[in-house]
Amino acid sequence: MSKKHKSTIGTYLIKRLEQAGLKHIFGVPGDYVLEFFRYLEESRLKVVCNCNELNAGYAADAYARMNGISAVCVTYGVGGYSLFNAVVGAFAERIPMVVISGAPRVFERSHHHLLHHTTGDINLQYNMYEKITVSSCVLVNPEQAPEQIDKTIAACLKFKRPVYIEIPIDVISMPCPKPGPFSVDTTITSDKACLDEAVSETLALLEQAKRPVALVGVESHRLGIRRQLQELVEHTGYPFASGLLGRTVIPEEHPQFVGVYGGYASWESARKAVQEADIILCLGTIMTDIQIGGSKALLDPGRMIVANSDKVRIKHHIYNHVGLKDFMVSLKSRMKKHKPVKISPSHCAAGMTDGDYRPRPGHKITVKRFYQRMNRFIDQHSLVIGESGDSIFNVATLSLPKGVSCIGQAFYLSIGFATPAALGAALAAPKSRVVAFIGDGAFQMTAQEVSTIIREKLNPIIFLMNNDGYTIERVMVDGAFNDLQGWKYSKLPSVFGGGWGCAVKTEGDLEAALKRAADRPAEFALIEVILDRMDCAEATRMYGAKYKAANISARK
Amino acid sequence: MSKKHKSTIGTYLIKRLEQAGLKHIFGVPGDYVLEFFRYLEESRLKVVCNCNELNAGYAADAYARMNGISAVCVTYGVGGYSLFNAVVGAFAERIPMVVISGAPRVFERSHHHLLHHTTGDINLQYNMYEKITVSSCVLVNPEQAPEQIDKTIAACLKFKRPVYIEIPIDVISMPCPKPGPFSVDTTITSDKACLDEAVSETLALLEQAKRPVALVGVESHRLGIRRQLQELVEHTGYPFASGLLGRTVIPEEHPQFVGVYGGYASWESARKAVQEADIILCLGTIMTDIQIGGSKALLDPGRMIVANSDKVRIKHHIYNHVGLKDFMVSLKSRMKKHKPVKISPSHCAAGMTDGDYRPRPGHKITVKRFYQRMNRFIDQHSLVIGESGDSIFNVATLSLPKGVSCIGQAFYLSIGFATPAALGAALAAPKSRVVAFIGDGAFQMTAQEVSTIIREKLNPIIFLMNNDGYTIERVMVDGAFNDLQGWKYSKLPSVFGGGWGCAVKTEGDLEAALKRAADRPAEFALIEVILDRMDCAEATRMYGAKYKAANISARK
Repeated sequence: MSKKHKSTIGTYLIKRLEQAGLKHIFGVPGDYVLEFFRYLEESRLKVVCNCNELNAGYAADAYARMNGISAVCVTYGVGGYSLFNAVVGAFAERIPMVVISGAPRVFERSHHHLLHHTTGDINLQYNMYEKITVSSCVLVNPEQAPEQIDKTIAACLKFKRPVYIEIPIDVISMPCPKPGPFSVDTTITSDKACLDEAVSETLALLEQAKRPVALVGVESHRLGIRRQLQELVEHTGYPFASGLLGRTVIPEEHPQFVGVYGGYASWESARKAVQEADIILCLGTIMTDIQIGGSKALLDPGRMIVANSDKVRIKHHIYNHVGLKDFMVSLKSRMKKHKPVKISPSHCAAGMTDGDYRPRPGHKITVKRFYQRMNRFIDQHSLVIGESGDSIFNVATLSLPKGVSCIGQAFYLSIGFATPAALGAALAAPKSRVVAFIGDGAFQMTAQEVSTIIREKLNPIIFLMNNDGYTIERVMVDGAFNDLQGWKYSKLPSVFGGGWGCAVKTEGDLEAALKRAADRPAEFALIEVILDRMDCAEATRMYGAKYKAANISARK
Repeated sequence: MSKKHKSTIGTYLIKRLEQAGLKHIFGVPGDYVLEFFRYLEESRLKVVCNCNELNAGYAADAYARMNGISAVCVTYGVGGYSLFNAVVGAFAERIPMVVISGAPRVFERSHHHLLHHTTGDINLQYNMYEKITVSSCVLVNPEQAPEQIDKTIAACLKFKRPVYIEIPIDVISMPCPKPGPFSVDTTITSDKACLDEAVSETLALLEQAKRPVALVGVESHRLGIRRQLQELVEHTGYPFASGLLGRTVIPEEHPQFVGVYGGYASWESARKAVQEADIILCLGTIMTDIQIGGSKALLDPGRMIVANSDKVRIKHHIYNHVGLKDFMVSLKSRMKKHKPVKISPSHCAAGMTDGDYRPRPGHKITVKRFYQRMNRFIDQHSLVIGESGDSIFNVATLSLPKGVSCIGQAFYLSIGFATPAALGAALAAPKSRVVAFIGDGAFQMTAQEVSTIIREKLNPIIFLMNNDGYTIERVMVDGAFNDLQGWKYSKLPSVFGGGWGCAVKTEGDLEAALKRAADRPAEFALIEVILDRMDCAEATRMYGAKYKAANISARK
């Protein structure tokens, strides 16, 4: 904070946000929170105002995935409830996000009449957020506020999930002691007896295993223990696959890497390794229906060891109070080192390789050849985003060079996530260039956030995959409800006042657009890729077939 | 429903929706609800698919204001939570809206692993909606489903507030008896003793009153008792004002009408009548902070009688179990008829009159003269929508011809409401032409719904009031956070594929645009009105000044 301010609850909170690692804060101003925006504007934090609150939440989600923590600031009621779905998603996908909401003055909380932006129940918003956060507070008492702020932000940093802070307008300016240093113990402590027994049982199972495989997940990234993960995986020598949410937690060039495993969206090599394994050692993988291939698990729990942030499940029993880091370190120290398995390069083949891709200028673009081309276009400076739907399944098939991150809501799957996420990720990783793949239906949900990308002078490339409707739904149940109004998408940059757009239909068009994007590295680009209506990923088709089969049997 | 289907839970629900008075249903498809969309498409209901769920909710809100009931259908989790703010708003403003959400299969509700679109807590969405609806159910048991559906839709019709129905995918196709006739008793019954005492006390107060005034509100419209309201007001002979949410519940040409009363947004004549009255008889008025002029009430409860849908507050005490209709009918029957007060036409002057408005072609448009011009432009075929913010305050100053409805979220005040509301209102009132006034900040929130307006071939006129930012916030606390990215708004119709757009800066430009809109009665029009940055309604300025004063005193 600038020194001209005396220390208040508002400046205290901002200082803590800075200390927690924030450089940007997302949000939309509104009357219950304007005073706090005034404080923010005078702070070192850069305020990024979004077109609406849901978009702010998605942007903050992606920012946290790259930066380790994010914050979003909204007004009471209309702001808090509009943001809601983004925070539910962040809770589901374990994203450390600080939600800050303004609120009516303290004395108004016990007042008789109806305040605007409320239903009349002044505790409703807090009560709802309490259920989708790991810590939440309302700062009605200035004496307690510093402690509440510290505790709440510490929980965000430790548990890597959203937290909620509600500040009445009049509390923001109340005096409070200057904040001191902020050190948060983020250690997830283990119970030694639980840890020892879990590791012993794991060792016994692994020693008997003939075809073990490791499946690595996103929690190692969230908890900052990727080094321990890689050391363990190298120590075991096992082949490893990465989960949909855990791309590149160990670089994909690693000699033990067999590909991405994510249910239908798996690489053939990874599918084979995981499904034929007699023991699957899951390290920080969030076991969702999409991850394991549908709601009826394709993977047998009887051959799985699943270590998550604070517990380990072995077959059908659970050890609580076992931290993931402790588990990995202890397992490595007690296990003898194995030689790495030999994986022939041909064994590990991405669903798509660039292979011998050569553009055929007059040919219509297909999904398959488009992503083959992308395998060459994406380089070590890219940051890849896959929108929920067909795009995330296609992105799963890409091989990612070392250092490239990949963002997607692979579990909660909000469509509309990716456009605001491109904004958030670009701000958090200014040295990378965001390359986002977004379906037309998803794009229409949150399209206006392109305007904020342009306003912030950022350079993402959005590939708008226009297959004329909700193709991922067409493969399940089709009807006019899956149709969309056709937009002239490529004109949008000129409406929003920056960057450039074009539509491409042939492989020749695509080459020209890619060249233009490369030639203008600092500019936002919207490249509409015109596809056939039913052209989609193999995983999408399989998902649709399974849905259809389940429904037809239900109708009988 | 078409006869080719056997009767299922899905067809039963759709039949009840039709019987409740629906012709359209809003929503966004998604995998948990696709099967129900398939049923909807084969029914008599017209499915209107929106760009996102929040927009669907706002459209349904406005549709219900005109049609008496609405429905919105979304997928589980990502859909239900994205819709959330619209339903909170509908709950606050007492809008009868049926929310239908798909859900995972029944057996999955007790399953171990994480389902996509969820946090893992399968009851969370239901538990949250239960708090913002008057009735809610999950149809897990096909035997009970018909009764649950009947009870829930009946509650919507009776209490005029949102209800929630959650249907697991597999339940939709389960067989169920064919629905019979659907008759709902919407009578709000009164306790006779409470009613008699409340009316007696009211009569005693009114008999002593020297300067009584009536303040009429929206509940008479929601409950379908406008005739009884008008008869009572004429019987009393009192001058009456209408609340912000109760425009035209009695036509504004009525000889006893003294104008709109809504805190800062009051007509001078109404302000005088209400504030100088010794008794204010409020009939169906929702007493919100905006309605009464800020959070510290400007109106003394000691001189108020407030009759709402099911209770009456007299001064500082409350009679429960008194229905509004019974109260009005009984009061009229026991009161002697008074001669109407004489109100001189000059006494009742709208904030804006067209007066002697004559366009001055080269002059820049100002807010004040723009709305003077609108007083002449709006005719008996118009349906007026005022967006939350400066626009709703300006719209309050317009005189509305007989038969013209006026829609706005005058209490909950979600910005972004008006664009989807234009869609919903246009579908519910096909003989009217929607004229919507929307600020630039609000427009950016939900702009994509213009695409659905165009897709449905509707003819609203949107006046996009571009004052270069959140002006209503600039008058409270200004900063860069109130700035917006400047869009070329008038190009949007061509991006979305229909209608036309233009930008107007002078009064001459405006005349040309109005002529073009009138000449193309079937086409959507987006008219961007370019205004000075701080040009706004008098009420906005007063609201800002009050906010500033309160904040400065808080900072001390």
